[in-house]
Amino acid sequence: MTKPSILLFRYVPSDMDIIAIRDIVASTGFFNEEEIDIAVELVEERLARGEKSGYYFVFAQTPDGRVAGYACYGPISGTKSSFDLYWIAVHNDERGKGLGPAIMEKAEKAMADMGAVQVYAETSSRAQYKPTRSFYEKQGYVQTALMEDFYDEGDGKVVYVKKLR
Amino acid sequence: MTKPSILLFRYVPSDMDIIAIRDIVASTGFFNEEEIDIAVELVEERLARGEKSGYYFVFAQTPDGRVAGYACYGPISGTKSSFDLYWIAVHNDERGKGLGPAIMEKAEKAMADMGAVQVYAETSSRAQYKPTRSFYEKQGYVQTALMEDFYDEGDGKVVYVKKLR
Repeated sequence: MTKPSILLFRYVPSDMDIIAIRDIVASTGFFNEEEIDIAVELVEERLARGEKSGYYFVFAQTPDGRVAGYACYGPISGTKSSFDLYWIAVHNDERGKGLGPAIMEKAEKAMADMGAVQVYAETSSRAQYKPTRSFYEKQGYVQTALMEDFYDEGDGKVVYVKKLR
Repeated sequence: MTKPSILLFRYVPSDMDIIAIRDIVASTGFFNEEEIDIAVELVEERLARGEKSGYYFVFAQTPDGRVAGYACYGPISGTKSSFDLYWIAVHNDERGKGLGPAIMEKAEKAMADMGAVQVYAETSSRAQYKPTRSFYEKQGYVQTALMEDFYDEGDGKVVYVKKLR
């Protein structure tokens, strides 16, 4: 595992990130067209409505300005201090450098600063998502729910939670 | 328990329902200001964006035109055939007449017609919501998840599911 090169973390999205996010999410090979569109819609919504959208971002940028990975998160409305980690993804070309944990750390720090006590993350129960589930587990996330057949027959939703304090 | 008087079920929302929904949800005494606003926003969103909003409704109307109760539901995006029952509420003046089960039946029929295989409903784990949980259980909903402290400390989220076929 190569150490990540010097990374710049950025929290304010720009129009350029619409393309960057589509590119990153598609490069992982984990998401279908509909899911990629949803990922892109979140940043579009943020650009259109600002913080009122409820979507917050952290982008990991390489020294030459490319976005290598990002996370999208925000408070869950109707809750006092629960946050949702909507997306965390690293470009396929940048995998294996520890970027995922580095982005996660920045996202959690930002959420904690916003008052988050617990963070939820959802993923699929399918075998294909084993690496995703292992990633969350290594980052201290604990499974709190399994809803069978949620996404489709044989494709359940796994919900993880991490207490930040 | 008095039998419900002749009820008319209506599926197309109108501007008048904005007031009706606020009135019904507030009358139950179960929801705070923020939650009432969320209930109202769903019908506003539907009126503004049509079916693209993803919010569908069934209204139970008395012969004199008052809305006695309603349900709001819709497909969960990213899933093949899972639906969310966002709200089901009966005006406090109309309780004890079997309206809840009658509205539920119509909502489930409408969801099944739209391809729903399973319906999810969420509520609070607090003692105050025991009647709500009992209502879902009587209607054949089964608890599939309990996320502790989700809404607030000591206020968990209970997720129910019902298979429609």
